[in-house]
Amino acid sequence: MTYCLSLHCREGLAFFSDSRTSAGVDNITIHPKMRVFERRGDRVLCLLSSGNLSNTQAVIALIERDLQAADGPNILNQGNLNETARYVGERVREIRKLDAEALHRAGVAFNINFLLGGQIAGQEPQIFQIYPEGNFIHASRESPFLQIGELKYGKPILDRGFSYDTPLGQAVKFGLLSLDSTARSNLSVGTPFEIFCYRADSLEVRHRLKLEDNDPYLRTVRERWQSGLIQLVRDIPELEVLRS
Amino acid sequence: MTYCLSLHCREGLAFFSDSRTSAGVDNITIHPKMRVFERRGDRVLCLLSSGNLSNTQAVIALIERDLQAADGPNILNQGNLNETARYVGERVREIRKLDAEALHRAGVAFNINFLLGGQIAGQEPQIFQIYPEGNFIHASRESPFLQIGELKYGKPILDRGFSYDTPLGQAVKFGLLSLDSTARSNLSVGTPFEIFCYRADSLEVRHRLKLEDNDPYLRTVRERWQSGLIQLVRDIPELEVLRS
Repeated sequence: MTYCLSLHCREGLAFFSDSRTSAGVDNITIHPKMRVFERRGDRVLCLLSSGNLSNTQAVIALIERDLQAADGPNILNQGNLNETARYVGERVREIRKLDAEALHRAGVAFNINFLLGGQIAGQEPQIFQIYPEGNFIHASRESPFLQIGELKYGKPILDRGFSYDTPLGQAVKFGLLSLDSTARSNLSVGTPFEIFCYRADSLEVRHRLKLEDNDPYLRTVRERWQSGLIQLVRDIPELEVLRS
Repeated sequence: MTYCLSLHCREGLAFFSDSRTSAGVDNITIHPKMRVFERRGDRVLCLLSSGNLSNTQAVIALIERDLQAADGPNILNQGNLNETARYVGERVREIRKLDAEALHRAGVAFNINFLLGGQIAGQEPQIFQIYPEGNFIHASRESPFLQIGELKYGKPILDRGFSYDTPLGQAVKFGLLSLDSTARSNLSVGTPFEIFCYRADSLEVRHRLKLEDNDPYLRTVRERWQSGLIQLVRDIPELEVLRS
């Protein structure tokens, strides 16, 4: 499985993905699920993928083919982010047309999802989720995060603590905890974790990193979170009735 | 949907359920999913159910029919908890035999699950999960909780904080937070919450309660948890690299 997450807050955007891919329980490998595209000073984009690896790689291959071409539409020359999401959605539909029927005959649904986010100069940052059918939605101040893949384990911490007004540095910690909680509760989601933190209006890729399982920062976050959480529960009063 | 949880710790057992039942999005009603059976001084049992309401009610009806009968096996006269779980599993199989085929023809799987736990005098407390096929597993010191229904949202907090050595009063708070986190992240799981807390070797039903949405204790737990969680994240150091 996969878990990918994007957060949209006032100060910018943050993107997270695990790197585990499974084709059956005995074939678990590591593949990147995060791609970052940059034309410094003009635009920065981040694309996250979940679902059948052959289908997501096929979509990425089309996107890269278009970037190599001398002319024609590509992921870096759309007029705005909405059109960029539509461009990606059209590539999903191309692969759907090629592969969905054969998958369907084998009893497998065509089920890939993408998160796309970033900023184009002079425009607002935004994040989108693109569905297997190629249609898409964007986040909002009221619903400021989008998730794909194994999303349930990591949702409660975001529902409790993350909002559009969360500072970007805090947002990164919430996202990392959401990702690590998922990995802890579901073995098919695992390190290395990729993080891309984008500060609004910077229009450059500055903060992109990969955390391995033994990363000292990741270990600090885990230890502080676990011990803090237990202490927090301890500090909540007990039900009166249980004392009788 | 439903979320039911049972915890097994050194000091005893704790059981939790929401009370929301949905038959489609526009037909959400409240039904109890927790039944407690007591023969004071001899045994205490708690049964939690998830899945198709007509199927779980049918199983409960068989269990109650047997309790009314003058003789024959019933949920309160088995030799140990393992046999009690088998007794419940057999009732699941009876209903499966009656109803599964008609459901299957309508494209609906026979998919009900039960959690059963308690203690019989002179024996250890234990909890079991009974599957739609009537087979079952029990919890262990290493895997000291069992969940049925919409279980993913409420699993991380248990994975991080709950163990067999958690004191019973703390366990109740972990269970309540697991349940409330699920309700917060998934609208189909909701109050009132039912709780039954059983202290090992008491062999009586003392601490059974229902918390409505506006219950002052439930509100305290939510407020303390939410504000404490945000503070906890704030206190974790930021990634050095983000400061550049």
